[in-house]
Amino acid sequence: MTDKILLGHGSGGMLMHELIREHFSPAFGMDGFGDSAILSVPSEKLAYTTDSSVVFPLFFPGGNIGDLAVNGTVNDLAVSGADPLFLTAGFVIEEGFPLSDLKRIILSMATAAEKAGVKIVAGDTKVVNRGKADGIFINTSGIGVLPDGRELSPSKIEKGDAVVISGEIGNHGVAVISERNGITFDPPVETDSRPLNGLVRNMFEATNGISFMRDPTRGGLATTLKEAALESGMCIRIREEALPIPPGVKGACSLLGFDPLTVANEGILVAIVNGNAADTLVTAMKKHPDGYHASRIGTVEDAPPGMVLLETAIGGSRIIDMLRGEQLPRIC
Amino acid sequence: MTDKILLGHGSGGMLMHELIREHFSPAFGMDGFGDSAILSVPSEKLAYTTDSSVVFPLFFPGGNIGDLAVNGTVNDLAVSGADPLFLTAGFVIEEGFPLSDLKRIILSMATAAEKAGVKIVAGDTKVVNRGKADGIFINTSGIGVLPDGRELSPSKIEKGDAVVISGEIGNHGVAVISERNGITFDPPVETDSRPLNGLVRNMFEATNGISFMRDPTRGGLATTLKEAALESGMCIRIREEALPIPPGVKGACSLLGFDPLTVANEGILVAIVNGNAADTLVTAMKKHPDGYHASRIGTVEDAPPGMVLLETAIGGSRIIDMLRGEQLPRIC
Repeated sequence: MTDKILLGHGSGGMLMHELIREHFSPAFGMDGFGDSAILSVPSEKLAYTTDSSVVFPLFFPGGNIGDLAVNGTVNDLAVSGADPLFLTAGFVIEEGFPLSDLKRIILSMATAAEKAGVKIVAGDTKVVNRGKADGIFINTSGIGVLPDGRELSPSKIEKGDAVVISGEIGNHGVAVISERNGITFDPPVETDSRPLNGLVRNMFEATNGISFMRDPTRGGLATTLKEAALESGMCIRIREEALPIPPGVKGACSLLGFDPLTVANEGILVAIVNGNAADTLVTAMKKHPDGYHASRIGTVEDAPPGMVLLETAIGGSRIIDMLRGEQLPRIC
Repeated sequence: MTDKILLGHGSGGMLMHELIREHFSPAFGMDGFGDSAILSVPSEKLAYTTDSSVVFPLFFPGGNIGDLAVNGTVNDLAVSGADPLFLTAGFVIEEGFPLSDLKRIILSMATAAEKAGVKIVAGDTKVVNRGKADGIFINTSGIGVLPDGRELSPSKIEKGDAVVISGEIGNHGVAVISERNGITFDPPVETDSRPLNGLVRNMFEATNGISFMRDPTRGGLATTLKEAALESGMCIRIREEALPIPPGVKGACSLLGFDPLTVANEGILVAIVNGNAADTLVTAMKKHPDGYHASRIGTVEDAPPGMVLLETAIGGSRIIDMLRGEQLPRIC
């Protein structure tokens, strides 16, 4: 067998069957690939999502496009309140892509899926001519089930709610952009890519006061908070001092001219929770390894509506908006 | 607003929100885009699939990448026996892609979804630098529900079963490859891209004798029949004279040196059905506009196992195998 991906690997014919039989099927523990998977789901209320990964470079400190693709979709389901169960994987591969890299990526996906407790049940492989893609793009869609009565929505956000974050910000964006530019930090800044469904399970066990959750990926914490403010019509006020920005991210951002608030994350979530339940929630989160750095970073007020305000360390306040333009393309 | 896609349209920030609000949300009738959709499904038994479309050129006689992406996933669910309900759409777009083309593609997707009776419920947009993709790639995943007791499987294929095809072969492949090479036929050969779930519904109303169905897309009819033979361990014998090959496809294939049996289709299916039910099934299929050219093309025998044999018009028999290599890359 060749050590590079050929156009024929995407033709639907014999080479594609070989690729699937020898690599995809064993890694993902599936019989076929490309047919519909037949599933039994234990609930009639589902969460359903899709995400394409086009990160560049494909390999970066702490992860690669494969685990990123799995964790991204798992987390999108988890922050909707669902228990992620099944994923699909759609590959668009450039002709000439090294088979060894593909294997490494597939194994990362399999490991990430196992860690998150989800199963990759269907897939698709397309190959495009050399120069018509950039190595590999991976789409993952995902299905999760929503427990009875669980409903998260920005419309449930109320005055007096607390804003809680599950961990440090900026690690993923800095890890990828450093790798892309050949910059290394000591200690290295690694992606925070991880599945959050285990943490989310603990959070719902700790309190039923959670109104809304989202994972601040592309566009960073600033964009997610602004979305929450706009969608709820409330004002979100956060304290700069409370933001968990690790020293490596702080240093890299000041070196590269980035705002840590708009840098992408792949393994944290923001929860908006009833003010009285916030301490209980943070305590519970801190007990989980993926919520070790959880903290309360702000509060919800009713005015000015749709605004996010950052109280700075010296007592001023700054208006926070969504990311404008393309600060960090292909970060996920 | 700009008339071209910018990197910022994939950043997760303000430009992306604009793109979604002004184009994706209205076309697909959805509130958000990128968050998990919350769905109620009327069954616990689901079919779930994914498919990436990388067809080149993006526009070709009778269709474009948008309707192809929708119909491909609808059909994959339909031939598994499921009623398709929900789709996701993941876009990877090249920087500089004309917004007018994107709009045209989105509207085709919306129209195709409406025609098939499915809803696009979640989406994702990524933008890669100029030269790092080829216009646009679209992934669609899909969920369908399986009616109680419906189970199709190659293991149900038995000696004496009939092989039925729903329509003419080769149209899609010839339409795309002609467009790619600037060849026109008179009358033009158009893609057969269409949703098959309506036809499939009629087929199950006509008989419960269907063992197995598949849509012969990439790799063509030859690859699908060979898969069925290998997966069932049976022999499939088809008659060359019975194959519905339209004159335009016949002419184009002899001109371009292609075998119509390995040319891609996007709007037909192969069903393997109890021999006694075959005539009833074909009659029912012919009454549906998408099954007008339905015909019985062969039979299942028990030996030689895993083989597909074509009885030629002059009385000989030819061994049919899967497509080898990359006859027609980027055909879907």
